[in-house]
Amino acid sequence: MKRRKFVQGAATAGVAAAASTLAAPAISQGLKEWKLAMSWPLNSPGLGTSGQRVAQRITQLSGGKISVKVYGGGELVPAFGVFDAVSAGDADMYHSAEYYWQGKHKGFNFFTAVPYGLTGIEHAAWMKYGGGQELWDELAAGFNLKGFQGSSTGTQMGGWYREPIQKLDDFKGLKFRMPGIGGEVLRALGVTVVNLPVAEIYPSLASGAIDAAEWVGPWHDLAFGFHKITKHYFYPGFHEPGTSASVVMNKTLWDSLSAEEQALVTTVVEAESYIQFAEFNARNLGSLNKLLGEHGVQLHQYPEDMLIAIGNVAGEVVRDIGNTDDMTKRIYDSFIAYRKQAIDWAKIGEQGYMNARVLPFNYG
Amino acid sequence: MKRRKFVQGAATAGVAAAASTLAAPAISQGLKEWKLAMSWPLNSPGLGTSGQRVAQRITQLSGGKISVKVYGGGELVPAFGVFDAVSAGDADMYHSAEYYWQGKHKGFNFFTAVPYGLTGIEHAAWMKYGGGQELWDELAAGFNLKGFQGSSTGTQMGGWYREPIQKLDDFKGLKFRMPGIGGEVLRALGVTVVNLPVAEIYPSLASGAIDAAEWVGPWHDLAFGFHKITKHYFYPGFHEPGTSASVVMNKTLWDSLSAEEQALVTTVVEAESYIQFAEFNARNLGSLNKLLGEHGVQLHQYPEDMLIAIGNVAGEVVRDIGNTDDMTKRIYDSFIAYRKQAIDWAKIGEQGYMNARVLPFNYG
Repeated sequence: MKRRKFVQGAATAGVAAAASTLAAPAISQGLKEWKLAMSWPLNSPGLGTSGQRVAQRITQLSGGKISVKVYGGGELVPAFGVFDAVSAGDADMYHSAEYYWQGKHKGFNFFTAVPYGLTGIEHAAWMKYGGGQELWDELAAGFNLKGFQGSSTGTQMGGWYREPIQKLDDFKGLKFRMPGIGGEVLRALGVTVVNLPVAEIYPSLASGAIDAAEWVGPWHDLAFGFHKITKHYFYPGFHEPGTSASVVMNKTLWDSLSAEEQALVTTVVEAESYIQFAEFNARNLGSLNKLLGEHGVQLHQYPEDMLIAIGNVAGEVVRDIGNTDDMTKRIYDSFIAYRKQAIDWAKIGEQGYMNARVLPFNYG
Repeated sequence: MKRRKFVQGAATAGVAAAASTLAAPAISQGLKEWKLAMSWPLNSPGLGTSGQRVAQRITQLSGGKISVKVYGGGELVPAFGVFDAVSAGDADMYHSAEYYWQGKHKGFNFFTAVPYGLTGIEHAAWMKYGGGQELWDELAAGFNLKGFQGSSTGTQMGGWYREPIQKLDDFKGLKFRMPGIGGEVLRALGVTVVNLPVAEIYPSLASGAIDAAEWVGPWHDLAFGFHKITKHYFYPGFHEPGTSASVVMNKTLWDSLSAEEQALVTTVVEAESYIQFAEFNARNLGSLNKLLGEHGVQLHQYPEDMLIAIGNVAGEVVRDIGNTDDMTKRIYDSFIAYRKQAIDWAKIGEQGYMNARVLPFNYG
């Protein structure tokens, strides 16, 4: 795609963040205009709105020095074209999910979600304080990119099935929309796995072109209306226990920023992660109530023997992917070491508490 | 305390955030100097360092318009004097925990931690998207204050016991350091409860003046060295399942800020909450390993019948506190309604996942 077409796209479909707050003298003193391309539609809840808020806040807090313009998926480049566009400098930032780039390098999977891996906070902790960010920086630098955890969806749901499954054998021959390593796990279990952009998931499930699909969790799934197709909603979402979206900049641009500008971007993205932790929790629980109470959705818990069998396969698949090359192996080793400790701490901390909280006592 | 003494304190003991980044022209155009008073010592991990980072970032990102100076507990005012100081405008902001102010109004308890209440993310979600912030704003406005969730420690530990306990009756006559509603629950169980500032906890436990104490979690407890006194470390921390620190501003000052300045403060504090979610997870798990592996600490899980009995008492105590007055009742009702839905969602989402993750399969 040529530069000319980008400019045209910007004029017709782009949404300018609050540039009206810019002081006139600042503009004449060297205003920076950044393009942020998303893999989601503008205003899509929790994903599009998140990328747009990042843009709006960088613009607002830069004191008139930076103006960030947002493009929904397909406006500037296709939804899955944002990586190449930002790498090449045709856009300045993207808002997406790193597991979409496993065709570029298997290591990217570990910066979004890993089946039976880390929860949202654990993922943030591994990246920020457990060595994950440094490994991501090293991997992404090879593509002239610099990435940040942009948010976390929290634990996702297992997905929607046109017909409920009950045992491992039922996976065989099923057509399932699932991206990332989760999809590889299902493939190893005999599933025909497809990865579809968001706009194609609903019609494919409705037509029966696929038998099952996962998207995110109750908030997003209610908005997309999957309950109109089927009532069978499975949990837990072993495949994406805490999925991180990403905000990624062109590294040449990042390196050219002042310390203050880098701190601004970092702070805005960190704040966005916090907002999303909170928003996903609140919207998911409200939406779950609506799905169950108003739309007659039935929850199905994967049986324990299935979860164990899936766990064994997930362990193998993740290990195989982790052994793809030296870089991926280093990411895998770091991730697995953190995971082991995180589980030990969760059992004593949050998981231990949550299991005590549901013991039979009177409260409220 | 008089204004003069504050100024003196600032000169002798205060730590200036990076004022060196300020552009000279901006200073002459009306630099704002804010005082941030903390309830913790300067540089105390995760609490002091958190307040100091908030100050440093507001200073850095304001483009030279605001300079925030930080005072550790006791420097400007006593550790527990920060509320009155900021309310009166003798300081501009504080970094503390709202349950310290239950003597001012019982409603404040719900903005820090509630026994058998919300986890850290759930607490953030209730405040930001479940009506909690609006109720806090209403309560705090009566004291000329405007508050924000400043961080979350995650689920705390149950505490250190000089001698391990095994049954509910063992609580009777015990002297225990525990603040907030958790302390009220223990009091109802026959414990002699004391609330001590951080500096007095260690010597009191070491001398036997108290029999048990909780502080935060492995990270902080390792730093304070409680393992040198006793090896008996209990969990889960039913009393503080996700403790929020607070960043609170003088409301007259807050109301006088421009929209951009308000967005700056909000963004910096939100980013800090994210950092703390991550940092507490990472530091706690590393510290737990050290306590168990290097210092011979023994973990004790409260027996299930104790956790149930404590739950029933906690339910009563929280309900009684919730019925103190109309304002507290509205906060209580909102909190309890959110809690019920949060538990339903956790069972399907994160808790459901974490329990699947520890099933017996090979991984890593």
